[in-house]
Amino acid sequence: MKLASLKHDRDGCLVVVSRDLKRYLPTDMTLQIALDNWDKIVPNLEALSSNVNRGQGTLFDERACDSPLPRAFQWADGSAYVNHVELVRKARNAEMPSSFWHDPLMYQGGSDSFLGPRDTILVADEAFGIDMEGEVAVVTSDVPMGASPREAAEAIRLIMLVNDVSLRGLIPGELAKGFGFFQSKPSSAFSPVCVTPDELGAAWDGKKLNLPLIVTYNGKPFGCANAGDNMVFDFPTLIAHAAKTRPLGSGTIVGSGTVSNKADDGTPGLPISEGGLGYSCIAEMRMVESLTYGEPKTPFMRFGDSVRIEMFNAEGHSIFGAIDQTVVKAV
Amino acid sequence: MKLASLKHDRDGCLVVVSRDLKRYLPTDMTLQIALDNWDKIVPNLEALSSNVNRGQGTLFDERACDSPLPRAFQWADGSAYVNHVELVRKARNAEMPSSFWHDPLMYQGGSDSFLGPRDTILVADEAFGIDMEGEVAVVTSDVPMGASPREAAEAIRLIMLVNDVSLRGLIPGELAKGFGFFQSKPSSAFSPVCVTPDELGAAWDGKKLNLPLIVTYNGKPFGCANAGDNMVFDFPTLIAHAAKTRPLGSGTIVGSGTVSNKADDGTPGLPISEGGLGYSCIAEMRMVESLTYGEPKTPFMRFGDSVRIEMFNAEGHSIFGAIDQTVVKAV
Repeated sequence: MKLASLKHDRDGCLVVVSRDLKRYLPTDMTLQIALDNWDKIVPNLEALSSNVNRGQGTLFDERACDSPLPRAFQWADGSAYVNHVELVRKARNAEMPSSFWHDPLMYQGGSDSFLGPRDTILVADEAFGIDMEGEVAVVTSDVPMGASPREAAEAIRLIMLVNDVSLRGLIPGELAKGFGFFQSKPSSAFSPVCVTPDELGAAWDGKKLNLPLIVTYNGKPFGCANAGDNMVFDFPTLIAHAAKTRPLGSGTIVGSGTVSNKADDGTPGLPISEGGLGYSCIAEMRMVESLTYGEPKTPFMRFGDSVRIEMFNAEGHSIFGAIDQTVVKAV
Repeated sequence: MKLASLKHDRDGCLVVVSRDLKRYLPTDMTLQIALDNWDKIVPNLEALSSNVNRGQGTLFDERACDSPLPRAFQWADGSAYVNHVELVRKARNAEMPSSFWHDPLMYQGGSDSFLGPRDTILVADEAFGIDMEGEVAVVTSDVPMGASPREAAEAIRLIMLVNDVSLRGLIPGELAKGFGFFQSKPSSAFSPVCVTPDELGAAWDGKKLNLPLIVTYNGKPFGCANAGDNMVFDFPTLIAHAAKTRPLGSGTIVGSGTVSNKADDGTPGLPISEGGLGYSCIAEMRMVESLTYGEPKTPFMRFGDSVRIEMFNAEGHSIFGAIDQTVVKAV
């Protein structure tokens, strides 16, 4: 089943989208309401899904979409590709403790004002160090406090993509204060469509999504790292981490962190232009450049720069539709 | 106007409460819906308020209340009483940078699973270092990105109290990871009633609430620090800080951080038993004990311990009702 929220009021209008993303059938509710009453509502959604996949419905336009949850009660973002963390910390001359390999990193993100997948990224100042972070995320049902990873796995309702916009220039100052990210993590955007696990077939193993995340920067290939590789903490582990001391409410979004692959020899991967898998954020590209050339060469995003994030199935069809955003100066 | 959410479904049933907290009149909506449509809905709520204050309505029972927003799209907690930050950091042998006096500390809190004001605090292990934090919080309307403190002041819709439950034993490890609090900040609880600024009269100056926060621990006076004193960053400043790089959605809750007063001579205040104003959390009591006796004497909360947090107007009447919670072992 594929779901989207067309832009409408604060929480959008939930629609059921055909597998090929060509048509949709509307519902009379929001995605949050569906998640709050999932077992009761899912048969209706499945009936709509069956009909839309048989050819019923209206033309679906990704550009009319808000994020599947235009606002959410929780956005908890992990950093499961520890390779990425290690590189980003190297880039800011910070040591990475070895505990990072067995204790998940996770931050509480703002969830009250997400961007739509095609919305511009409004930033006041290029000096903030504007960056994208391509990620995979899951949406959960209620998760009891203290849930095991196995219980957490059963709470995964939906899967989608994220652009976790980051302001690199503001991060060192905020992290030095010890309270985590706040101003350095402006509104995130999610893919037009979110899907139930069964839509992913063998690519979803119940814990990870084993497909390349395709990141295009200003129209050129930038990254195609496989989200199933080098993911040190899988989604059930991340959810259980989040639920250690409190329950998680339905509609909680848990992110993977920036997808990042090592090269086969364990070194940081090469850029796509040099035959590698590239990167899902500019910070990682810059770190590799620093290691290679002694200094970063790729600047962070400037006003007018754009990023596209999507994922294709084995047949080459877009699964979630595309996040496609341009950075614009806030006035 | 005084508002509360009676326990009902996930988001409660919004009711309008009489000034003396004795009666209420129901509405057919949630507080979030009222906040999302404030200008349109507020005349209806004011009419109900007028009627309930003239004697209409049903008996109001604080114990039937959920938190005013049982779940919210944002809970951003400042640390405006820098005195408290300085003491808590001393207690964990961490230096406080001088920038803390002019750049607000703020963390993104979990907002998907708040506790009701009389709900038990479920914790798996006393070794987590269970503590209360008595605070004041405001609820905002939509705040545009880059709002000035003056604009932010106009967005304050409601004021309430908070128990920002903290697990002190988990904080050092989480802060060392650099991503801020997560497991160390379990679900917070809010006062039964939230109020519009006009209900506070001269005690609310548009920026701060100038009244003592009364904290009672296991039935004994523990703190009566004045929330208007030593608040280095007022609420408009905290809101503007939160809105620097992204807009805030209606229903955003911004907290003051643990209310904390210095003594007149600038030293940490004395416990109530020694004639001081006491504290709004145990960590601060322990720090003062460490300074005085070389080691903390008051343990963190144990299963069965209870805390009550409330505030009274000049006539001695409870403004918000009482948060009153007991710690219970999670099984």
